[in-house]
Amino acid sequence: MRLATFINPSGRECYGVVTPAGIIDLKRRLGGGYPDLRSLIAKNGLDQVRRHLADLPDHSESEVTWLPVIPNPDKIICIGLNYEDHRIEAGLESTEHPALFLRTAASQTGHRAPIVRPRESGTLDYEAEIAVIIGRPGRRIPQATAWNHIAGYSCYNDGSIREWQRHTRQYTAGKNFSQTGGFGPWMTTSDEIPPGTVLGLSCRLNGEVVQQSSTDQMIFSIPRLIEYVSTMTPLAPGDVIVTGTPAGVGARRTPPIWMKPGDKVEVEVERVGVLENVIVDD
Amino acid sequence: MRLATFINPSGRECYGVVTPAGIIDLKRRLGGGYPDLRSLIAKNGLDQVRRHLADLPDHSESEVTWLPVIPNPDKIICIGLNYEDHRIEAGLESTEHPALFLRTAASQTGHRAPIVRPRESGTLDYEAEIAVIIGRPGRRIPQATAWNHIAGYSCYNDGSIREWQRHTRQYTAGKNFSQTGGFGPWMTTSDEIPPGTVLGLSCRLNGEVVQQSSTDQMIFSIPRLIEYVSTMTPLAPGDVIVTGTPAGVGARRTPPIWMKPGDKVEVEVERVGVLENVIVDD
Repeated sequence: MRLATFINPSGRECYGVVTPAGIIDLKRRLGGGYPDLRSLIAKNGLDQVRRHLADLPDHSESEVTWLPVIPNPDKIICIGLNYEDHRIEAGLESTEHPALFLRTAASQTGHRAPIVRPRESGTLDYEAEIAVIIGRPGRRIPQATAWNHIAGYSCYNDGSIREWQRHTRQYTAGKNFSQTGGFGPWMTTSDEIPPGTVLGLSCRLNGEVVQQSSTDQMIFSIPRLIEYVSTMTPLAPGDVIVTGTPAGVGARRTPPIWMKPGDKVEVEVERVGVLENVIVDD
Repeated sequence: MRLATFINPSGRECYGVVTPAGIIDLKRRLGGGYPDLRSLIAKNGLDQVRRHLADLPDHSESEVTWLPVIPNPDKIICIGLNYEDHRIEAGLESTEHPALFLRTAASQTGHRAPIVRPRESGTLDYEAEIAVIIGRPGRRIPQATAWNHIAGYSCYNDGSIREWQRHTRQYTAGKNFSQTGGFGPWMTTSDEIPPGTVLGLSCRLNGEVVQQSSTDQMIFSIPRLIEYVSTMTPLAPGDVIVTGTPAGVGARRTPPIWMKPGDKVEVEVERVGVLENVIVDD
């Protein structure tokens, strides 16, 4: 199933299931018990969803405004340098453990919503990533059972303001500008993607492929990331782990490529779909 | 006024005003309109509080369980290396901009609640800091008006697992272990601390002073921090800016001092109070 959060044509924030025939509004059907997609995941509401899969769709894809798949996660944990080719292009030493930073909810933006280039810097860069959405909560989750804690997968564009990222050694400032992180269009539930499936990942800028890799190129596998992060902090339903980007970012090109107003950037994750955003100026 | 969040003797999460005579429960009086301290701040409820200041207290300080002042902030933005003496002891180059990292709500703990040493590492260290709690929201707040956005001040112990902090260049992993960040006992509202007041800050470990400084030793002033952070992201009521620690941390001593079960650690902020925590093993 493809689950998404969106604003319906009446202006109400909803969530639903995206089918080939259109979007079935689940907020209307299940909103009393599950006010948002995060609570649906937390309260094991996916079986409830299945009972509505044959319903007539309420909306076409073109008439909704997409929001970040989980607009209100408890936490968004991002992984730096998780593909060897990107680590090498960034000129950084390898580490035994993943590099973590956090994003705030306000730094996110939905499918087909703008990615906003701030007034302060033109160094806006893309980073195609696979987002893992946590379903079952847990602390100190061993790798062997980590797959059981995944509710689904989505596309993420870990949009970065490189100038601010380099203000200090901490990436946080460059990773948290308002509306720079694309997250969508939907999450594909993990029942459709068996544990260990190799997923292709790519980024296109104005139609040209600028990043291309797959999960078998990750330095730290998805189960290893879940183990590491959950050792530190309890994972909660709706938490998002953004699993890192491969080589090809704009900052490491000669000359660098910075995204500018009007550019269209797409992140494609195999078996999930394509997240599309257009750049606008603040 | 001193505003705090706590569990009352009946086991209910409440917030209230701490007076010399005891704690006046505001959740009971104002909870319909303001379910928690964050919403009280967001909806300008402080005038409502003043009407209850002469009420008979409901609880003594000894009968409540203190929670983090804001248990559910939208974001907790921490500043690394904001005192010159700590920057020098850490052996790091100076930067033109503050170094930011984020903490999660789950990493916090309240006054007199334990700070938890995890199973994974014994390198638990203290960091006395002043927490600024945001009142008025804003984006791109200029330094000149930054003080107007502050609801109050509190004590923060930015408890750190140094071994995990050094896994990579990103501090995040060492700063987000569950229940390692003390935040309390209360916030003193900003009407009692005029803009620019120099506040003393100290840390005591088992009664011995291990850190001592004051806000006039900050590299980046509180208005400068508000300006920088709000340039990146909108500040929301209840957001917490943890403004950095001075020299004297355990990791930089010879030999290093690590906190161990039974240790008592106190963070004192002038005009606010003393945050006290005891270390326990996970």
